[in-house]
Amino acid sequence: MSIIVRKANEPDCQGILDLITELAVYEKMEEQVNMKVETLREDGFGEEKYFQCFVAENQENDSSKLIGYVLYYYIYSTWEGKCIYMEDLYVSPAYRGRGIGSRLMGSVCKVAVEKKCARVHFAVLAWNKSSIDYYKRQGAVNLTETEDWHLFRLVGSAIDKMAAKADV
Amino acid sequence: MSIIVRKANEPDCQGILDLITELAVYEKMEEQVNMKVETLREDGFGEEKYFQCFVAENQENDSSKLIGYVLYYYIYSTWEGKCIYMEDLYVSPAYRGRGIGSRLMGSVCKVAVEKKCARVHFAVLAWNKSSIDYYKRQGAVNLTETEDWHLFRLVGSAIDKMAAKADV
Repeated sequence: MSIIVRKANEPDCQGILDLITELAVYEKMEEQVNMKVETLREDGFGEEKYFQCFVAENQENDSSKLIGYVLYYYIYSTWEGKCIYMEDLYVSPAYRGRGIGSRLMGSVCKVAVEKKCARVHFAVLAWNKSSIDYYKRQGAVNLTETEDWHLFRLVGSAIDKMAAKADV
Repeated sequence: MSIIVRKANEPDCQGILDLITELAVYEKMEEQVNMKVETLREDGFGEEKYFQCFVAENQENDSSKLIGYVLYYYIYSTWEGKCIYMEDLYVSPAYRGRGIGSRLMGSVCKVAVEKKCARVHFAVLAWNKSSIDYYKRQGAVNLTETEDWHLFRLVGSAIDKMAAKADV
């Protein structure tokens, strides 16, 4: 078995979508997945790029299969300038415990270093203790614990209602 | 007094930085502000744009002054596609209670509607009850409460250490 980590290309989108769904099942939120392979293709590899992605590929004999991915994009801190947000980091269960997650996250951190991003942010579900332990071992700080930041979301008709308050 | 809300332009950067600093003082975190006007100019109005911004301007006689701003950028949900993150929403204390914050946030929500973004996300400090009450009245959901999402951050040498685990 030989696992390589590389930048994702457009033909990887179906494999990435399969892994996105696997991760959502693991997070017990698969009912929230509302993604199509065409959308991933357009948003990641079209004219305007909304995300970037590294994949882990298992190369055996003549076949190969995506078994992990990390998806990220730039965000902006008004205190620190440009930063990176790691939206998803996932390795299929059968391939865990071999450092593949660290190679994927490492690739994102290498981009952060190259692009002079002061921070890498991400969100984790509080019950996901094994992931939290892993991230803390890497030196990550839980800002919800240390500074009491809470994450909020506006969706659907609430967005429409606010939009009606715009001047023009 | 006449308050207009409009898209920010490059000459607004000093006024925006003054308001960023005001907001950080209000959040009791001003020691974390590490921003220069040149960085804002380059990152918001240079070749690669890392954020977008609306400002509220008080126009009196011949003078005008920025008294509020909202700064946002696109993020990406692997479940819902492109979304908007509202990094900062701020109105100077003397100008509150007149709906200026709603006009600013409304401008961002209008962009979300136009760009078909399913979600507008943002983070709030748990002690900031008046802001939380305001956002909840607008229909926002506290995801840290409802789904137990916690926000994590990696900085400095921890990023460098992870970056060393990248393949290439």
